[in-house]
Amino acid sequence: MIHIEQILKRAQETEPLVQCITNFVTVNDCANIILAAGGTPSMSHVKEEAAEAVQKAGALVCNMGAIEDAEAMILAGKEANRLGIPVILDPVAAGGTSLRRETAKKLLEEVHFSVIRGNASEIRSLTGEKVTGKGVDAAAPDIITEDNVSVAVCGMRQLAEQTKSVIVVSGITDLISDGKRTVLVRNGCTTMSKITGSGCMVTSLIGVYCGACPEYPLEAAVTGMTVMGIAGEAAEKRRITNGTGNATFRNDLIDAVFNFTEKQLTEEMKVEIYGR
Amino acid sequence: MIHIEQILKRAQETEPLVQCITNFVTVNDCANIILAAGGTPSMSHVKEEAAEAVQKAGALVCNMGAIEDAEAMILAGKEANRLGIPVILDPVAAGGTSLRRETAKKLLEEVHFSVIRGNASEIRSLTGEKVTGKGVDAAAPDIITEDNVSVAVCGMRQLAEQTKSVIVVSGITDLISDGKRTVLVRNGCTTMSKITGSGCMVTSLIGVYCGACPEYPLEAAVTGMTVMGIAGEAAEKRRITNGTGNATFRNDLIDAVFNFTEKQLTEEMKVEIYGR
Amino acid sequence: MIHIEQILKRAQETEPLVQCITNFVTVNDCANIILAAGGTPSMSHVKEEAAEAVQKAGALVCNMGAIEDAEAMILAGKEANRLGIPVILDPVAAGGTSLRRETAKKLLEEVHFSVIRGNASEIRSLTGEKVTGKGVDAAAPDIITEDNVSVAVCGMRQLAEQTKSVIVVSGITDLISDGKRTVLVRNGCTTMSKITGSGCMVTSLIGVYCGACPEYPLEAAVTGMTVMGIAGEAAEKRRITNGTGNATFRNDLIDAVFNFTEKQLTEEMKVEIYGR
Repeated sequence: MIHIEQILKRAQETEPLVQCITNFVTVNDCANIILAAGGTPSMSHVKEEAAEAVQKAGALVCNMGAIEDAEAMILAGKEANRLGIPVILDPVAAGGTSLRRETAKKLLEEVHFSVIRGNASEIRSLTGEKVTGKGVDAAAPDIITEDNVSVAVCGMRQLAEQTKSVIVVSGITDLISDGKRTVLVRNGCTTMSKITGSGCMVTSLIGVYCGACPEYPLEAAVTGMTVMGIAGEAAEKRRITNGTGNATFRNDLIDAVFNFTEKQLTEEMKVEIYGR
Repeated sequence: MIHIEQILKRAQETEPLVQCITNFVTVNDCANIILAAGGTPSMSHVKEEAAEAVQKAGALVCNMGAIEDAEAMILAGKEANRLGIPVILDPVAAGGTSLRRETAKKLLEEVHFSVIRGNASEIRSLTGEKVTGKGVDAAAPDIITEDNVSVAVCGMRQLAEQTKSVIVVSGITDLISDGKRTVLVRNGCTTMSKITGSGCMVTSLIGVYCGACPEYPLEAAVTGMTVMGIAGEAAEKRRITNGTGNATFRNDLIDAVFNFTEKQLTEEMKVEIYGR
Repeated sequence: MIHIEQILKRAQETEPLVQCITNFVTVNDCANIILAAGGTPSMSHVKEEAAEAVQKAGALVCNMGAIEDAEAMILAGKEANRLGIPVILDPVAAGGTSLRRETAKKLLEEVHFSVIRGNASEIRSLTGEKVTGKGVDAAAPDIITEDNVSVAVCGMRQLAEQTKSVIVVSGITDLISDGKRTVLVRNGCTTMSKITGSGCMVTSLIGVYCGACPEYPLEAAVTGMTVMGIAGEAAEKRRITNGTGNATFRNDLIDAVFNFTEKQLTEEMKVEIYGR
C-alpha cells in the first residue's frame, strides 16, 4: 500500500495532465482545483478530438453533467482503456431522467472506469435500483449515516466487483471500496453542499491523484476525498472567521488545496479502514 | 398580500428545486446564488431531458443568453405550464439580433411566463419596438429615471396585461408590475453593472422565490429584486472597505445573499407601491 | 506612437464593446476582466447571429478554446474584416490535435487578425512547425529565456509579416512584434500559470484596448500584456500577504485591473523596445 503523503508528493512532482470531459456549470472550478493540486487541466470536450487529446493525458475524467458529450466520453474512454490511462466517472444526477439512466448504463458497458464517484443516490442508481435524487443532491433515504453504513458498504462492494472499479460514495462520511478493501473518510463540512461543484471538484482531484499513481486507484481515491475534506474544513474556518458565505468558501476551498501541506494531512485526516 | 419576510423564510424551509436553462457565461454564479438563497439548482440544458427534468422542479428559469437552447426552453416551459410550475424568462439581449427578436417572440407565443425580468431595452424590445442595446446593457435612451418612470410604468403595464406575466424592469430603480399593482425597488448599487451576470443572478433569485411561493409571482419578484439590491449594497461596502474590485464584489454579493437576515431586510429595504 | 496611458484612458472613456467567441472554461473571467478594464463584454458564440452581433462591436476576440465554434469565428471574423473592426486570435492549444492544427490554419486563411496572442508552443505551431504542448501550456523546449529570445523574435517577425498581424508570445518575458518593431514586457508572476484562463483573459484585455484604439494594434497589445502583468504582480502581493491560493489570486488579478491606475503603470511597467 502507498501512503497518501507519497501520492500528494508524486502529484506535485509529475504534474499529471488530467483530461476532463465535464459540464459547463463547474468546469472553471474543476480546472482551478486541478491546478491547485499540482495537475495540468485540459478541458476539451468535443468528440472530434476526444480520443487524440487523451493520448497525452495521465488520467481522464468523465463528468456526466456534460450529458451532451457522452459520445466524446466513450471515444476518449475507449482510447484511455487501450492505453492503460485511468478513467474516472462522475455519474452526475445518474438516476434523474431516463436519458441519464441510459447514458450511465452505456458508459459502464463501453468503458472501464478505475474509479466511480457519486453521491449515495447516484451510486445506487448505477446498480439499476430506482432512486429519487433532488437535482444533483442525494435523496434523503439514500443518505448514509452510522446506522445504515453496513448496508451501503455491502451494496457498493457488489458494484465494485461488477464494474471492477473503485466505488466512492461521498457524503458526510465518504466510503471508498474496491470490493475487498473499504475505507471511510470522515473529513469535510456541510457548507460543501452549499456550493455548486463540490462533487465535480473532488472527482477532478481523484483524477489528479490517479494520474500521479495510476497503479493505486483505491489510494488515489482516498487521497482525493481526504484532501477535499480537509480543504473544506480549512475553508469553513475562514468562512466563520471572516463572516463570508458560499461564494468565498468555494475560493477558500480551492486555495486550501493550493496551500495543502503534509503536516495538515497528518494532523487532520480522519481515515479508517472499514471492519477493523 | 404576503410579506417578503415570509417568502424568504419559505424559501429556506422548502429549498425549492430551480431548473435553469441558462447561458455558459454566468451559469456557475446562478447556481451558487440559488444555493445561497436556500434553493436547489439544476442546470440541465439539453432538450432531450428538458421536459422530464422540470417535473420535479419548483420553478423553471429560461435565460435567453442560452440562445442555442430555445427548443429546450419551449419543451420544459410547456411541461411546466401543464403542471402549474412557474416559469421565469430572462430575455437577455432580446432586441440585439434578429435571431433574438424571433426567439423572444416564439418563447412568448409558446410558453406562459409568470415573471419576465430584463433591463429597460430588453423589456421594451418585447413590445415589438425597435431598440438599440449595447451588448447586454440597456441603451442610454431606455434607462429609467425619475423623469420618465411614468412612461415606463405605462408600457410595462400593457406588456403585463398582454402576456399575463409579472414584468420586471431592472435598473437604478427597479419596476415590478402585474398590470394592476406596480412596485418600485430602490436598492442596489452601480458596481452591479460592472460584473457579468447581475441580471442572470437576480432572475435566478426570482426563480427561488417563485418556487417557494408560486401563488405570489409579484411578491416573489419584489423579493428577488430587494434581496439582490440589499446584497449589492452590502457587497459595495465590503469593496470600498477592502479596496477590492469587481471579481471579489461578485463573491461578496453571493455571500451577502447567503448571510441575508430578516433584520437586514426590515432595516434596508426601499420598496414602495407606485402611485400611492 | 501612442502612449499606454492614453490607451488606458480611451478604453475607460469609450467602453468598447468586445465581442468574444470563447470557451466555456474561462468565459466568465473573460467577461469580468473586460468589464474591469472599462469594456463591455458580449459573449454570444452561436453562428446564427455571429456576423450580425459583431456589427456593433469595437473588437472581436476569437478564442480557439471554443474549437466547436470555429464556424462562428469565421463568419464574425469576415464581417469584422469587412467593417474594419479589429479581430484578435487566441490559438488555444493550436498544435495539440489535428483538429486544432486544421482549424488554426483555416482561421488564418479566412480571417485577417490584427493581433494573435498565444504561448510559445501555440505561436510556433502556427508557423507549421510540429510542436508538443502539454494541454494548454507551452512545452519546455519552447519556453523563451534570455538565451533564446533572439531566435524567438526572428520566428515571430516572420509570422507577423506573413499574417500581417501583431504577434504576441506570452511567457515569463512577453514578446510583441508587428514584424518591424518588437517590444518586450517583463511584468507578471509565475502564479499566473497556476490559474486557468490567464491567457484567455489577457487576450480579452487586448480586445478592449484594440477596441479603444483600433489604429494601434501593436500598442494595444503591449497595453494588454503590461496591464495584465502588473495586475498579476499586485495579486501576487495580496496572495502572499493574505495566505490565499490560486482561486483568490484569480479574483485579485481581475480586481487589480478594475483598480488599475496610471500611477501604477508609470511606476511598475517593465517595457522595453527590443534591439535598442
